Amino acid sequence: METVKYVLTEDRMPTAWYNIAADLPSPPPPVLHPGTHQPVGPADLAPLFPMALILQEVSTERAVEIPEEVQAIYRQWRPTPLYRARRLERALDTPAKIYYKYEGVSPAGSHKPNTAVAQAYYNKQEGVKRIVTETGAGQWGSSLAFAGALFGLEVEVYMVKVSYNQKPYRRALMEAYGARVVASPSEETAAGRAILAEHPDSTGSLGIAISEAVERAVQRDDTKYALGSVLNHVLLHQTVVGQEALAQLELAGDYPDVIVGCTGGGSNFAGIAFPFIGARLRGEREVRVVAVEPAACPSLTKGRYVYDFGDTGHLTPLVKMHTLGSTFVPSGIHAGGLRYHGMAPLVSHLLNLGQIEAVALQQLETFAAGIQFARAEGILPAPEANHAVAGAIREALRCKEEGTSRTILFNLCGHGHFDMQAYMDFQAGKLKDFEYSDEEVAMALAGLPSL
Amino acid sequence: METVKYVLTEDRMPTAWYNIAADLPSPPPPVLHPGTHQPVGPADLAPLFPMALILQEVSTERAVEIPEEVQAIYRQWRPTPLYRARRLERALDTPAKIYYKYEGVSPAGSHKPNTAVAQAYYNKQEGVKRIVTETGAGQWGSSLAFAGALFGLEVEVYMVKVSYNQKPYRRALMEAYGARVVASPSEETAAGRAILAEHPDSTGSLGIAISEAVERAVQRDDTKYALGSVLNHVLLHQTVVGQEALAQLELAGDYPDVIVGCTGGGSNFAGIAFPFIGARLRGEREVRVVAVEPAACPSLTKGRYVYDFGDTGHLTPLVKMHTLGSTFVPSGIHAGGLRYHGMAPLVSHLLNLGQIEAVALQQLETFAAGIQFARAEGILPAPEANHAVAGAIREALRCKEEGTSRTILFNLCGHGHFDMQAYMDFQAGKLKDFEYSDEEVAMALAGLPSL
Repeated sequence: METVKYVLTEDRMPTAWYNIAADLPSPPPPVLHPGTHQPVGPADLAPLFPMALILQEVSTERAVEIPEEVQAIYRQWRPTPLYRARRLERALDTPAKIYYKYEGVSPAGSHKPNTAVAQAYYNKQEGVKRIVTETGAGQWGSSLAFAGALFGLEVEVYMVKVSYNQKPYRRALMEAYGARVVASPSEETAAGRAILAEHPDSTGSLGIAISEAVERAVQRDDTKYALGSVLNHVLLHQTVVGQEALAQLELAGDYPDVIVGCTGGGSNFAGIAFPFIGARLRGEREVRVVAVEPAACPSLTKGRYVYDFGDTGHLTPLVKMHTLGSTFVPSGIHAGGLRYHGMAPLVSHLLNLGQIEAVALQQLETFAAGIQFARAEGILPAPEANHAVAGAIREALRCKEEGTSRTILFNLCGHGHFDMQAYMDFQAGKLKDFEYSDEEVAMALAGLPSL
Repeated sequence: METVKYVLTEDRMPTAWYNIAADLPSPPPPVLHPGTHQPVGPADLAPLFPMALILQEVSTERAVEIPEEVQAIYRQWRPTPLYRARRLERALDTPAKIYYKYEGVSPAGSHKPNTAVAQAYYNKQEGVKRIVTETGAGQWGSSLAFAGALFGLEVEVYMVKVSYNQKPYRRALMEAYGARVVASPSEETAAGRAILAEHPDSTGSLGIAISEAVERAVQRDDTKYALGSVLNHVLLHQTVVGQEALAQLELAGDYPDVIVGCTGGGSNFAGIAFPFIGARLRGEREVRVVAVEPAACPSLTKGRYVYDFGDTGHLTPLVKMHTLGSTFVPSGIHAGGLRYHGMAPLVSHLLNLGQIEAVALQQLETFAAGIQFARAEGILPAPEANHAVAGAIREALRCKEEGTSRTILFNLCGHGHFDMQAYMDFQAGKLKDFEYSDEEVAMALAGLPSL
């Protein structure tokens, strides 16, 4: 039997994002002002984001309408395909049914444009001229550059210096879309200059790049900041993924017993899982949900659920999340999109409520899973997505052991065509597993703000 | 107005390839045996190809059924989308309507899997264990590696050494799919050793790599050879592209006045154009068809229409085609897929019959077109595809000058995610235009076999 694609006609594309806040048994703890430690209000966030996104951040409406202009752009690549991975099932010799939602068909090659387009739209609506953001490996930066080009917005990207130098191709894609890309830490911001004064050879981190982008956004009236994960409105925009998957599984006459997603900031995981978790919270249907994170950046499995900053420079508001501490610099694994010290507050809240499970996987297992997947299904996943693939394979092999069939759904959030160096290193035996000791985690956590 | 996607439901995916041989006013000249100079028969080709493909090569049936197993794999990414490029139209301020068929959604990122899957299927059917091929930049090699993985066939790829060394990421993709990749010229073949004896530092060429692959295929009983363009059966397999486009334009209530495709060996051009040329040959509907080739490899516009070898080592049969001579080594432009000395016999025949036009464009114009396209439509094209984009923009701007609206269709045959170095070089001003003088072309043509 061949791999099967489930196609959703455009008229069944979601017209509203699904807001899980409407179904939570208790709301997540409030976001706090970094100076006063009091809950932030919309005015506090206005220098950073357009008001429409701030209102989405605190909305408790279940359905948030997707503007027609955003839907029109989504339709360029959405609905994305859902596949039944029959060739992978055969290769694993498992009684499990494995489905994957494939977000790599977007112009930027990942799920990130789902929120980039929405964010660019609202910024444009409110007269913003320029958006500033940060990027690690470049998936997010290239998606925002793409969205900015469509809306005629200038895009500035502070790119972690080690990636800027070692992975120039994502940078080239951003520049092809017309974005300005700056290596971070840079001389352009006080935050960057402070780092460089102390560490002239700093190769940067996502936390530093966020500080620089935030600083550059608040300095200029015509400029706002954009974040590619973590925040409620970003997760909200990704729920088109899970809503489509739900409708496609209906076409297949199926429903997942278990959903697997990889987690860095949490947005692709939320995108696939929240609509299903919402159905369970409303008492409609059971489902197990597993978040897979890298052992080298284990915020869900080893981090603490406390208030922390989103950036190294401590310019952002304080959010309660599973965190390894804002000064934590994760090991140089190849899944750059998963190397963030914190986790989305909504995902953290769900873990705290016992609504989801989390597991940390080692790098080598995830790459081996990616290769096995590519040879069976033909699509080479991004290293981030390999964590979801590996998690799904573990579930499928457990079905085989137990001799039971379960329906597994995972999010294949992007292709690996920009990540070939990682695959070359893996195939050459150059990659290593890496796990932080409890002592190392404790040291990083010692830097947490005391609240 | 936003860019519009025309979706074809799977039940309207073509179930047969379209064979233009059925509609030609005269057949193309026969393929000749390199030794006897007599027309080759099926037995002559049997060491190279499975019999099913040899029969397709000489078939004059209009519709060649696509095996259900091949259709099942096509459905993983087919039907591919057809877009009305409204944002590009607006950016050009043209009255023209521009449509593009997008083949970059395949797992390998180009149109090449359309024939790779079919070739792997027929080889598997006839008990072949191993397929050998050559590749330049790697689009074809990675597509055959993908197809081989699905059918459990071993794949060996002789990759032009300069690309093997300078563009390791396509090689890494082939290896991820499990293929064996060898830098050509190699010590593994007599053809390779002969070159290395004379030129130890040879960086290879497509013509040399073909010689090596053919030699390795004929040496082993369980091994066949595969070619990614030029041959009739390869062009045949690509006609799913144009057939789908025809049906999608019907949905749009439109029909092209002009079709634009880029030409290297001719397969993506044939894929989009042949079904429409067939309709014209049958007297059903008029259409202009423009082949766009690089000025640095101008086989259609400066080559001669004569019998020539497909490879440098003169192991292949002789085919009548527009050629620059099998010893011609094209300049190092970045559209590696268009750097072939010859042109598909069917495309050459159509040019000779006056059924198509040809134009040669300079590299810088094509990259500028690619950047403009990416910023308007969000998709970054492969350098090969940029030739079609530039050709379509020329047609659209002519409409603007003349104040008339025409419907333009072009084939966006692949994305440029593996070609970022080329874009970096372009943006940095490092790329140059290049055109061969008439003297240089005459010198290359002097090496043609005299028949």
